[in-house]
Amino acid sequence: MTSTPIPEQMTAVILDSYNGADALRVVQRPVPRPGPNEVLVKIAASPINPSDLMFLQGLYGFKKPTPTVPGFEGSGTVVAVGSSTGLMGRYLAGKRVACVTQQKGDGVWAEYTTTMVNFALPLDDAVSMEQGAMSVVNPLTAVALIDLAKKAGHKTVINTAAASALGLMMHRLGQQEGMEVVGIVRRAEQVVDLKQQGVAHVLNSSDPDFNQQLRDLCHQQNIRLAFDAVAGDLPQLLLAAMPAHSRVTVYGGLSQQPVQVNIASLIFEDKVVDGFWLGPWVGQKNLLQNFLIWRRAQKLMRSALKTEIRSRYPLSQAQQAVHDYESQMTGGKVLLAPGM
Amino acid sequence: MTSTPIPEQMTAVILDSYNGADALRVVQRPVPRPGPNEVLVKIAASPINPSDLMFLQGLYGFKKPTPTVPGFEGSGTVVAVGSSTGLMGRYLAGKRVACVTQQKGDGVWAEYTTTMVNFALPLDDAVSMEQGAMSVVNPLTAVALIDLAKKAGHKTVINTAAASALGLMMHRLGQQEGMEVVGIVRRAEQVVDLKQQGVAHVLNSSDPDFNQQLRDLCHQQNIRLAFDAVAGDLPQLLLAAMPAHSRVTVYGGLSQQPVQVNIASLIFEDKVVDGFWLGPWVGQKNLLQNFLIWRRAQKLMRSALKTEIRSRYPLSQAQQAVHDYESQMTGGKVLLAPGM
Repeated sequence: MTSTPIPEQMTAVILDSYNGADALRVVQRPVPRPGPNEVLVKIAASPINPSDLMFLQGLYGFKKPTPTVPGFEGSGTVVAVGSSTGLMGRYLAGKRVACVTQQKGDGVWAEYTTTMVNFALPLDDAVSMEQGAMSVVNPLTAVALIDLAKKAGHKTVINTAAASALGLMMHRLGQQEGMEVVGIVRRAEQVVDLKQQGVAHVLNSSDPDFNQQLRDLCHQQNIRLAFDAVAGDLPQLLLAAMPAHSRVTVYGGLSQQPVQVNIASLIFEDKVVDGFWLGPWVGQKNLLQNFLIWRRAQKLMRSALKTEIRSRYPLSQAQQAVHDYESQMTGGKVLLAPGM
Repeated sequence: MTSTPIPEQMTAVILDSYNGADALRVVQRPVPRPGPNEVLVKIAASPINPSDLMFLQGLYGFKKPTPTVPGFEGSGTVVAVGSSTGLMGRYLAGKRVACVTQQKGDGVWAEYTTTMVNFALPLDDAVSMEQGAMSVVNPLTAVALIDLAKKAGHKTVINTAAASALGLMMHRLGQQEGMEVVGIVRRAEQVVDLKQQGVAHVLNSSDPDFNQQLRDLCHQQNIRLAFDAVAGDLPQLLLAAMPAHSRVTVYGGLSQQPVQVNIASLIFEDKVVDGFWLGPWVGQKNLLQNFLIWRRAQKLMRSALKTEIRSRYPLSQAQQAVHDYESQMTGGKVLLAPGM
């Protein structure tokens, strides 16, 4: 246990209504006390993820009563443990952890947060607080998607939004795991950038002959699975390009458009559209499986699952930080750092 | 073998380009001769199905070089058999059959057609030529969809376009098989009509509170599978109304619109959109399985799988017949009858 005294008041970012960054404000409020089964974490850093943007706009898988503190993941130090936390609570006390927000209760964009004892995951010594702040959402999604592709027998998969932090992780993890990940990006300079990072196949969806390039590649390599974070008309382009019996698994909606699918793809070509959400994927695993996945992901945090950081903001500039990230969602993450 | 002489010339309906009914014309052309593995069928009747309309517009799963004779299914008498047709050819000679068009070659909207020997299916004595003309596409689709629902463990499923010939078959077959089929129709009089025919749950998608009715029913009865023949925004309404882990299987596109799906349904609720096509379903079965399915369907042709007929046209009025069917796709089938 650290002996640093816990103050009465803290700085926190508050979402007043589901209207995006403009509905954020910064307040002083009491530091929460950990309830039964909970720990109190002093937050060191927290990223802004696409899922946070969806949450701010009320488009995520659940809403919380407002006002609420947003932020799904972060890192910090366990500074107090509640009752009934048992062995795990005693083990975690004083430890550096990644922490994930509960579906009920406040998030991590604050100086302190409480979360369930099993939502606080010990960080490896070699993982910095900043990298540790981003060690759940993207790394475990990358692990999950590559795992899903392997289990379904694919050797090559497509991923859209390939220049994002998650996209880059998927490429590097795929290389380690013998799974080729074909990247789709929107700008020519992203093609150059990804190729320099060792990605073998990168297509630019703004190229005039993109559809033909995609179709040729999918048929040459028999690619039948695509992961899509964009939605809109991209899933249909992917379905049309892939051979019969293909699947697009949607895990994000960066275009903020619904998915459009031609019925010919569904009926005559036996193609499928489904989705992926990390929470249920983790929930389907048992404790040991999740422990092993976490250990493995932590070991990769300095290589395949490392995230580049573009900028850091104090909590008082949360609105500006979100706007910064919204304006450019590739080229490094934007972090909130309460200690700044 | 009948001893009726086979003429040199016949009347046939020709599609000149994939521009719908207006691209149809009626011509005189030589009666085809059966090649190896083929039989020649003198056509008695042929229905106009939604799949024919899709074919006329170039929206079906395959196109044939034009000009081509449309028409996917019909009934008639085997009047000649080609070489290499073996035992089956000798058995079929002179028999009343249902016949299905090959993917290559001409269709059945003509006085005569050739088809592969295994695409000519003997009709039960109790099945009339007119009913026999409609004994493949809709009856086997009804059998297949109810079968898919049963094998996936569903007790209740939704079907859209419920007032169509296929919709009515699915209700009656479902009743025999212990599968409740909830019908969705577009007009109040169709609700009355279907209820009179014994369908327990019929919803009208034009009702102002349709979405709420659908949602209540799906949650009360834990309905997680819907078959849709409409596309457009109906699949999304179905997905939104059903509980998590549901599926919409699209088998038609009467709205002529692509399917729109919200990403929240895919990502956060583990919902899936896929499609169904009869051809591959039949193709996955072995000969014995298909024989047993055919025998069973034939036995049901006078009860669950019976089709109401609204009007009959000679081949010379094919264009008018297609327009008649397009103008109202419920309330009985439109038949082409070369003998008229």
